[in-house]
Amino acid sequence: MHIPRLLINFKAYVESSGDRAVEISKSAERVWKETGVLIGVSPNIIDLRQVSSSVEIPVFAQHVDPIPAGAYTGHVPPSLVKEAGARGSLLNHSERQIPLRHIAESISIMRDLKLISIVCSPTPSESAAVAALSPDAIAVEPPELIGSGIPVSKAKPEVILSSLRSVRVVNSAIPLLCGAGISSGDDVRAALELGSYGVLVASAVTKSPDPQRKIRELAEPIASFTRA
Amino acid sequence: MHIPRLLINFKAYVESSGDRAVEISKSAERVWKETGVLIGVSPNIIDLRQVSSSVEIPVFAQHVDPIPAGAYTGHVPPSLVKEAGARGSLLNHSERQIPLRHIAESISIMRDLKLISIVCSPTPSESAAVAALSPDAIAVEPPELIGSGIPVSKAKPEVILSSLRSVRVVNSAIPLLCGAGISSGDDVRAALELGSYGVLVASAVTKSPDPQRKIRELAEPIASFTRA
Amino acid sequence: MHIPRLLINFKAYVESSGDRAVEISKSAERVWKETGVLIGVSPNIIDLRQVSSSVEIPVFAQHVDPIPAGAYTGHVPPSLVKEAGARGSLLNHSERQIPLRHIAESISIMRDLKLISIVCSPTPSESAAVAALSPDAIAVEPPELIGSGIPVSKAKPEVILSSLRSVRVVNSAIPLLCGAGISSGDDVRAALELGSYGVLVASAVTKSPDPQRKIRELAEPIASFTRA
Amino acid sequence: MHIPRLLINFKAYVESSGDRAVEISKSAERVWKETGVLIGVSPNIIDLRQVSSSVEIPVFAQHVDPIPAGAYTGHVPPSLVKEAGARGSLLNHSERQIPLRHIAESISIMRDLKLISIVCSPTPSESAAVAALSPDAIAVEPPELIGSGIPVSKAKPEVILSSLRSVRVVNSAIPLLCGAGISSGDDVRAALELGSYGVLVASAVTKSPDPQRKIRELAEPIASFTRA
Repeated sequence: MHIPRLLINFKAYVESSGDRAVEISKSAERVWKETGVLIGVSPNIIDLRQVSSSVEIPVFAQHVDPIPAGAYTGHVPPSLVKEAGARGSLLNHSERQIPLRHIAESISIMRDLKLISIVCSPTPSESAAVAALSPDAIAVEPPELIGSGIPVSKAKPEVILSSLRSVRVVNSAIPLLCGAGISSGDDVRAALELGSYGVLVASAVTKSPDPQRKIRELAEPIASFTRA
Repeated sequence: MHIPRLLINFKAYVESSGDRAVEISKSAERVWKETGVLIGVSPNIIDLRQVSSSVEIPVFAQHVDPIPAGAYTGHVPPSLVKEAGARGSLLNHSERQIPLRHIAESISIMRDLKLISIVCSPTPSESAAVAALSPDAIAVEPPELIGSGIPVSKAKPEVILSSLRSVRVVNSAIPLLCGAGISSGDDVRAALELGSYGVLVASAVTKSPDPQRKIRELAEPIASFTRA
Repeated sequence: MHIPRLLINFKAYVESSGDRAVEISKSAERVWKETGVLIGVSPNIIDLRQVSSSVEIPVFAQHVDPIPAGAYTGHVPPSLVKEAGARGSLLNHSERQIPLRHIAESISIMRDLKLISIVCSPTPSESAAVAALSPDAIAVEPPELIGSGIPVSKAKPEVILSSLRSVRVVNSAIPLLCGAGISSGDDVRAALELGSYGVLVASAVTKSPDPQRKIRELAEPIASFTRA
Repeated sequence: MHIPRLLINFKAYVESSGDRAVEISKSAERVWKETGVLIGVSPNIIDLRQVSSSVEIPVFAQHVDPIPAGAYTGHVPPSLVKEAGARGSLLNHSERQIPLRHIAESISIMRDLKLISIVCSPTPSESAAVAALSPDAIAVEPPELIGSGIPVSKAKPEVILSSLRSVRVVNSAIPLLCGAGISSGDDVRAALELGSYGVLVASAVTKSPDPQRKIRELAEPIASFTRA
């Protein structure tokens, strides 16, 4: 199971919806081919199928409900996400918080379906809590830095270090992505040096005048770092 | 603005997802061409774009969030639903209940976008409440009959009559769809005779061994009735 | 059934909790005796029983759940609120929004128990929606003015006028309280002149250095107005 | 900080509300004095203050919101719970599930106030997740056994054993209460022998024709066990 080192959250931005969702995903695919860095994209659910059928890189939903297929109006079961071509889903993003039980149940349903679960968490202790549920990866994002342009890897390196330590106590095998405010190659390098497996970004790419160049800038330090 | 007389909710059923969502929608389109009865389909959000680009009949989301496009992970703004080709959305289905304020705000955002809002309600008094928010249509569905195969038009005709009366006091121009348990042409006829503008169905079509024949069976009484 | 003309929401303020909840309620009771203006208090649920047993004026919960007594950990059924001595409850305050169905069910359960339901609403159209559910009173509070010190009766008189008109179309018998930013006798007078039955206040009283004097200031225009 | 070995959840039962809440709490106090077993009671929030002022044993809220005192209509901050005399609160009961973040924040706020946090969890992995947040105790209750009369300690001993193991990996100092279906002294003994620190009960006591005798029956095996 391949966890992306660079995961791009498209949120519900106009700039990364519809045809633009496909374009940015193709840019990410190109950078993956150039650099060998595994890049994932997480488009809005409305674009999930189209993006999944347009690129080879792994595509992630932004949220799933802990339900089977069935009589659930206005809900998205993991099985339909899989059928649409996605390889996994984000869960519990700070913009879409869910009860502890839903996190646990969604991870379990996704594991049975061989979907990759990447659970978001704002703090070291919540990261450790999530680790106890054995998701495939954890994305640490202090919410006060999301969208701020102030990179967590520089503003709050202790959150990453402490999350790594806390998660390791519970389950040392779970890779940690770090997010919030990551917007340059330097930010990515700092995150990797602190021990992150990879990074989760959003506006830095989706709002960039040249998304492909930005994706390349973010992927290059990962390529150097993982080669080293 | 054209409100469908027959609206088919695909929920999150396997039987009406992916390629099957497109097939059933094309069947509905064929019946519309044969009979002249306006039929709408409401696929799972994951299929919304693909269905919208495959048929001419109006396509509806099952739920939208009362938000603009932007930094909203795991949410669906009406503007993206429109961009994906949908003509409107269901709101407040008994399987996806939302706060009163969200109903009001979603209707208002959809009105500005010229999207059709069809708000679900379980009782006459809630139908009247919803009417005060001026959606484009109201779908009355007593939740205890949803999926039961016991048609509201026969089991609880007083719910329809009373909803019609209550809604008319508030806003006489809002058409009423009636739903829950509708599974035959007879049920549809009964609903129309009680004063419904149309019907909302789900499993009767999506779980049918021959959805097109079932759609035709449900549409024919509407064709006769509206011709009369 | 007696709807208070002046209803004081204690929220979860330190200044109106515990012994202070009882003191402010006794002040309100004194002003009621002096002026004849019916005053209600809505303490935090944690103080509800003690306040109810300390004063004769009507006491209101700030929220109830639409459930019977039973196996509901961390919930408050209307029947227990009644047993504790309360005369009714606020519902759907903008700080505690609930699904449309919960509003409808709570009103219905409270009606059966002869408890007074006062439902909050931020706008004229939502006030009309609530009116269709036949609560005992509606409190209109534009949320942007709550706690602002800018009185709705002066800043947005059209919200009150329009709410009155909208509610009247649906159910002309429902009294309207107006709230948000009301902090002086002048604000109260303006609200009454616009057609409000009464007012809903919070910080103006609870944060006042002399709550009894403030309550008197707010009650006096009501006494003059209703005598006139 | 003293964690009760026997914690009685009064839920929103008529049988354990109002004067009956005080009576059952006094019975629990008597059994504590007789046996030395620390017993806690968790009345409905509406009875919290009265019960707290009537007994010396620790009293717990059933839920708190992760907020400071302030402008929060219809919410209960931990600080008001403390001011009312409670010694702590249950959190995340399966009848009142909350987002992971709310659990983390409530524990943190309660720790600062020196209130005891007892967090409920349905499974071993969720118990481990909760342990990572360092509450004062965890109560494991498989929801399918709650109110069933089938004791978790007999029907699902592996849930208790596995929860103990999982929690110990994360934080070996956190005591585990076990709940769901516990209704006799034998059930309690089985729970202790499996390694539980204590038990969480509800209907077994509150619906008993003789609550004091039932409390004694449940406390005695704890007295014997902890003496041994």
